Amino acid sequence: MVDKEKALKNITRIKEKIAKSPGVRFRPHFKTHQSAQIGEWFREMGVSAITVSSVDMALFFAQHGWTDITISILVNPLEIEPIILLAETVDLNLLVDSAESTAFLAQHLTPKLTKSVKVWIKIDTGYHRTGIEYGRTAEILSTAKEIKKSRGLHFQGLLTHSGHSYKAKSPGELTAIYNDTVTKMTVVREYLRENGVTGVEISIGDTPTCSAVDTFYGVDEVRCGNFVFYDVMQMAIGSCKEEDIAAAVACPVIACYPQRNEIVIYGGAVHLSKEFITDEKGRKIYGLAALPNESSPRWGPSLNDTYVSALSQEHGIIRTTEAFSRRVRVGDIVMILPVHSCLAADLMRHNLLPTNYTN
Amino acid sequence: MVDKEKALKNITRIKEKIAKSPGVRFRPHFKTHQSAQIGEWFREMGVSAITVSSVDMALFFAQHGWTDITISILVNPLEIEPIILLAETVDLNLLVDSAESTAFLAQHLTPKLTKSVKVWIKIDTGYHRTGIEYGRTAEILSTAKEIKKSRGLHFQGLLTHSGHSYKAKSPGELTAIYNDTVTKMTVVREYLRENGVTGVEISIGDTPTCSAVDTFYGVDEVRCGNFVFYDVMQMAIGSCKEEDIAAAVACPVIACYPQRNEIVIYGGAVHLSKEFITDEKGRKIYGLAALPNESSPRWGPSLNDTYVSALSQEHGIIRTTEAFSRRVRVGDIVMILPVHSCLAADLMRHNLLPTNYTN
Repeated sequence: MVDKEKALKNITRIKEKIAKSPGVRFRPHFKTHQSAQIGEWFREMGVSAITVSSVDMALFFAQHGWTDITISILVNPLEIEPIILLAETVDLNLLVDSAESTAFLAQHLTPKLTKSVKVWIKIDTGYHRTGIEYGRTAEILSTAKEIKKSRGLHFQGLLTHSGHSYKAKSPGELTAIYNDTVTKMTVVREYLRENGVTGVEISIGDTPTCSAVDTFYGVDEVRCGNFVFYDVMQMAIGSCKEEDIAAAVACPVIACYPQRNEIVIYGGAVHLSKEFITDEKGRKIYGLAALPNESSPRWGPSLNDTYVSALSQEHGIIRTTEAFSRRVRVGDIVMILPVHSCLAADLMRHNLLPTNYTN
Repeated sequence: MVDKEKALKNITRIKEKIAKSPGVRFRPHFKTHQSAQIGEWFREMGVSAITVSSVDMALFFAQHGWTDITISILVNPLEIEPIILLAETVDLNLLVDSAESTAFLAQHLTPKLTKSVKVWIKIDTGYHRTGIEYGRTAEILSTAKEIKKSRGLHFQGLLTHSGHSYKAKSPGELTAIYNDTVTKMTVVREYLRENGVTGVEISIGDTPTCSAVDTFYGVDEVRCGNFVFYDVMQMAIGSCKEEDIAAAVACPVIACYPQRNEIVIYGGAVHLSKEFITDEKGRKIYGLAALPNESSPRWGPSLNDTYVSALSQEHGIIRTTEAFSRRVRVGDIVMILPVHSCLAADLMRHNLLPTNYTN
């Protein structure tokens, strides 16, 4: 269940912060919601460029009228056929992190197109998932030159995802990661400029640092996406408050065990994903629990001393107080605030139920 | 990708073991594969009774001609409408663990039916997820009496899922859990008999203990399901060998980083789930990696010193040897043996590709 008012507030907050940073493009990541309807909320706020995390998702949003799309995963050569289709129909932005992948595109993509494709070099600024490592400047330069010499490929810039921000514990640490990211990207851009490669944009993206900073200095594009819903993990990092969390999974109670301070819900790994955080007491937390409301906001504050402590395929175990385990009844609904809203939304997206009771 | 030969071997192994235990019914759990086609493989081997883990799954398999179905999750009162529909069309087995839930069925289900419904009492033999705790015999008896006095409800027996077997480390430990489970269930049945409740069946289900034991003494029904595919977790528990694993996710390589002995695949939490095991060195393992074969078996043995070390939404990071990270190429396919095949199959089930190259 999506609380539309909260989601709109979350979108507006980031959008206004970006508006205060002149020349910065907002290209929100749609992998969090994967919803055509929620996409329209962004469009109504003036968003026209988007990010997705797979070719399938790009096809989906292209079908829903989006014409400027970045696929923020390195090009998978096995998907070249749908990439060709997309590149012909929308303004497509692709990611590479090697001269080899660039050569592949020059050989298999552009000869089949009547228009050019924008290509970004993925830079690894510390997350160590994908991208050319920040320090390997010669490799970055040779890849940039490979793109520039390829007919039909337009070198758009340097793109990073500072996913190591998910390990941060405070807004101060997040700001430090933002500053470090921008510094590294700027150093690389400067190196390229000194070597004759100009007009290079910088694109960043993770929700934690984008939530922490006040202005987006030093970058040309912001791609964060999780902020539309936020979740328990973002709350633990410090990038949102609990009341900002805009998505929850409505789970029926199927058993109450006051003798062990637990209740069991119909809501498991196939609904919430097995993502968890470990709290300061060392407990694994797979979600928080709140009670539904009749009117907006659609659920109340999370229940004290209550959390999802275990998940199997279809079941969730909630550790709670004896009082709550005696008060709640089989057949009641408990709203579970997910640890990772992107994964819960991916699992539940065919059941997404945006609620909007006041507008 | 499902290796049909391996899956058929896995089904045959359990089926033959059950056949050696006179009077024991095989009611395999279909939540692992959730596939109509794989269901037919069971049907061809003479299976006619099945287990599912949700009302939706029961509706799906009822549509595919299955007429004897156990929904092995406690009755969710909010799903009473589809339960009524199912109970009228198939031989339906439901689970309760309280007199209240039984009274709910007597009030809302049976008055609308022209036939009776089988009801099992879920017993908690040590997993502590759902069920009446083994020791609470008075509560079990009163629930049994509540079922027996309700018109249209037929008290079928006692059902348990010894999910604590997933924490076992050896076949010996698994056999001990099986023995303990059967002992507890038999004690409860004896208590019921002494109190005038007779004709009570015993149903057990977890794949680890069912894989470890030689015969199914002391029970009337076996409901395991994961064995059809097995997975890395079952291998770690000792309930299968690696060559028994019959499902793998074919993941394209999108980046190679020999400098850090890693490759990155397009294959993440939305394909494999975030389930992991921790190995003896304390490393989190989200999957093993193997190379695809042109013919059966469809993948080779898992690569030495190679495992999925991290997953984000669409990406997987594979830690490997420098040699492999230099040999593999972007665009190659790596087969990932999942840690938990039920969750991976749930995520990938619309792409399930059974392969059968020799029959």
